[in-house]
Amino acid sequence: MEEDDSRMSIELLSAEEDKHGGVTVNIDDPHPIHPLLFASSLKASLSNWTQQGKKGVWIKLHIQHSNLVDSAVMAGFRYHHAEPHYLMLVYWIPDTPDSLPANASHRVGVGAFVMNTKRELLVVQEKGGKFKGTGVWKMPTGAVNEGEDICAAAIREVKEETGVETEFVEILAFRQSHKSFFEKSDLFFVCMLQPHSFDIQSQDSEILACQWMPIEEYAHQDFMQKNQLFHYIAKICLSKSDGEYTGISSLLTTTSSGKKTYLYYNNGYNLHLSASKEEEAN
Amino acid sequence: MEEDDSRMSIELLSAEEDKHGGVTVNIDDPHPIHPLLFASSLKASLSNWTQQGKKGVWIKLHIQHSNLVDSAVMAGFRYHHAEPHYLMLVYWIPDTPDSLPANASHRVGVGAFVMNTKRELLVVQEKGGKFKGTGVWKMPTGAVNEGEDICAAAIREVKEETGVETEFVEILAFRQSHKSFFEKSDLFFVCMLQPHSFDIQSQDSEILACQWMPIEEYAHQDFMQKNQLFHYIAKICLSKSDGEYTGISSLLTTTSSGKKTYLYYNNGYNLHLSASKEEEAN
Repeated sequence: MEEDDSRMSIELLSAEEDKHGGVTVNIDDPHPIHPLLFASSLKASLSNWTQQGKKGVWIKLHIQHSNLVDSAVMAGFRYHHAEPHYLMLVYWIPDTPDSLPANASHRVGVGAFVMNTKRELLVVQEKGGKFKGTGVWKMPTGAVNEGEDICAAAIREVKEETGVETEFVEILAFRQSHKSFFEKSDLFFVCMLQPHSFDIQSQDSEILACQWMPIEEYAHQDFMQKNQLFHYIAKICLSKSDGEYTGISSLLTTTSSGKKTYLYYNNGYNLHLSASKEEEAN
Repeated sequence: MEEDDSRMSIELLSAEEDKHGGVTVNIDDPHPIHPLLFASSLKASLSNWTQQGKKGVWIKLHIQHSNLVDSAVMAGFRYHHAEPHYLMLVYWIPDTPDSLPANASHRVGVGAFVMNTKRELLVVQEKGGKFKGTGVWKMPTGAVNEGEDICAAAIREVKEETGVETEFVEILAFRQSHKSFFEKSDLFFVCMLQPHSFDIQSQDSEILACQWMPIEEYAHQDFMQKNQLFHYIAKICLSKSDGEYTGISSLLTTTSSGKKTYLYYNNGYNLHLSASKEEEAN
């Protein structure tokens, strides 16, 4: 009897199974959890998952449980990724190389090429960043938000920085660069947009000035001449404005699971990718 | 005299200044640090940085110092991002909306369209994932590694999955999808590669089978017909194999800071973007 009394009952962590043979524990309890209690539950749970032949074990720790991070690391977990309100830790049980999915590796940015019928380009000067105080006039640019489409991001940035309403036409070009922020890479898409309004009303706290500028003046800025990448992009934009370039079109389509997704491709070949009205009706 | 004796000297954290008015503390000391000592140093340092008018404060905590995470969160820091070996925390001092850069938001994948002179496509069947047991033959695909160029990733994946040596030709199309992994988005680039070898030797533990398959047979698989996105991509590939499509070319160029970067654009317009040998010599 004494033996039974001296046993402590340890609650196993509740976990959701995934289709890759792994489990995910989500710790978002509104109440504080004691690190020692968590450490015991985790140890017992790990032993249980190991017996069950599980592979990857994920722990999503809400930031209010930051006092549990150390216990998970002590149990052999490593960091996988973090967002402002949580930290994701992971542990690979089998004695094989792990096949865990990689963390997000890229940030995505957009620049907007917006030209009016007088061949004037919508350009801005930024208050901060690398162009601060240089006098360089550049296209409106910005980061694509979490879950945002590239074509939508370009329209939003132009509206925020200049107040001008636009419609997406196509992507003219894009570049990939590395180590742009910590160890992450960066994809930057130059989008052509058609303006639907022309009055400039900047609400953006990061924009110093904004104007419509003759495209040749934009392209002949000293900076554009000295920076090969910008020089090429300016050349592409000039060709486009002369009607001698076709960019990359967007087409809203769906996957087999019904997910909406944009496909970007060269639409200059009469490919008839999108369904006709008749096909859609069937 | 007694007053002086009762004072504890608190060491300020050493920090590097950045060009946005912020500071970064890098905690990678090989020795353990006591959380109370760290909390005191952090409190004193924060007060010091506030007086100096600093904005963003970054703390990069090596995973061996996971016992300090809680102290940083208690001091008001939030998570910014994490990689396997470290956690980055951040704190915005001013009484204004923070202008901190966003975390990486996308993973980037590649698929490889590799066709031989007999109009046969290099295709694989995967052991796991969503196509497991479906019998679907697909292009070799994979994730772009940290710091890797899209064009290089496609070549590497084909070599790993099939043993076939290839050369990058162009990107045929790409799609963006959302919520593909936790809250992250996904960019997938279909790359056309020219094969330089034809013997199949798969070393990849995730590949079940691999073969050269007539392109029409590939495109007419049931799955391709039912999935609009795949159907469109197959159509683009067929057009390409018939010489009726131009994809997105790559050009290695440099930024003003001398960074190498690939620019991707439609090269079907005789744009003469790359410098001639003479220009390069000057």
